Amino acid sequence: MKSLEEKILKEGQVLPGNILKVGSFLNHQIDVNFMMEMGREVARLYSNEKIDRILTIETSGIPLAFAAALCLNVPMVFAKKNRTGNLSGELYTTVVHSYTHNTDYTVVLEKQFIKPGDRVLVVDDFLANGRALIGLCDLVRSAGAEVVGAAVAIEKGFQKGGDLLRSQGLHVESLAIIESMNDDSVTFRA
Amino acid sequence: MKSLEEKILKEGQVLPGNILKVGSFLNHQIDVNFMMEMGREVARLYSNEKIDRILTIETSGIPLAFAAALCLNVPMVFAKKNRTGNLSGELYTTVVHSYTHNTDYTVVLEKQFIKPGDRVLVVDDFLANGRALIGLCDLVRSAGAEVVGAAVAIEKGFQKGGDLLRSQGLHVESLAIIESMNDDSVTFRA
Repeated sequence: MKSLEEKILKEGQVLPGNILKVGSFLNHQIDVNFMMEMGREVARLYSNEKIDRILTIETSGIPLAFAAALCLNVPMVFAKKNRTGNLSGELYTTVVHSYTHNTDYTVVLEKQFIKPGDRVLVVDDFLANGRALIGLCDLVRSAGAEVVGAAVAIEKGFQKGGDLLRSQGLHVESLAIIESMNDDSVTFRA
Repeated sequence: MKSLEEKILKEGQVLPGNILKVGSFLNHQIDVNFMMEMGREVARLYSNEKIDRILTIETSGIPLAFAAALCLNVPMVFAKKNRTGNLSGELYTTVVHSYTHNTDYTVVLEKQFIKPGDRVLVVDDFLANGRALIGLCDLVRSAGAEVVGAAVAIEKGFQKGGDLLRSQGLHVESLAIIESMNDDSVTFRA
């Protein structure tokens, strides 16, 4: 998505540790109109698929999931990183390793919000090692539902998550794929 | 907002500890079209005010903040509950007590995303003791910006946050105010 690549070049900042900072529009401040543009693109890319709901994980996946759900006219659900007091139903759980925070965390989803047979699109802001998306796919399959595909805003193509998921036959769409990046430049996959 | 009251009566569930569970549409699964209806109502309630941006706090405030920001055509920002690796700029911080989790946590916001003189609407899903909104107001004022008001989906009118904020002169709009609730019934403020 050309407009996303341009926005990354204009506003993104590369930090040590392969971190791409895009807090001005994607995951701290949200450019809501641009987020809707990305949501429309996700809907277009999956326009040939029947989708019943969108699943993402708190926190940064929520705006894109919301935008895509509006465009697809389906509900969205966000899995939670910790069991909180207002989760009372039966839960699906999975464990996800975070490379950013170097820790494992348990991700939970109330069973009532994904039904057997549902066709689910999983969404997140970033795809790097793929751990969060793999965890979301686990939750969907635990429910006896089907993963239609995965959609992310930015894939770090130099990390292994995207290749891994595609090699498992998953339909993965990334609105921008970064081939390489350093302090001075960001290069996108052609 | 009548449609929200009806949705709470139909889908809400009261749990021990004054917890109102509305995960089917507000803070676990999101009914995105209904969220937009709430966003339009927030925009209508503040239509006489100039608003430059919306500030919320992760996680559950994000969908309503996003919807209201779309309707007001302004950016939204969400404050974060922990310092993460991809926050590199100078930060405003404040400490918020969570009664739900019985703990204090530090809330952070990169300085660049609220500018001196900005007119900011703070948004959240729930208003109970008011700690999260007070923390958001602190962040706005730390920036030399102005709090135009606060908008929440559901206020627990039997807890003290709403009265406290209004007694300080803050313009608070709650789309539904619960006067009392127990296992059998939820009563709204007339």
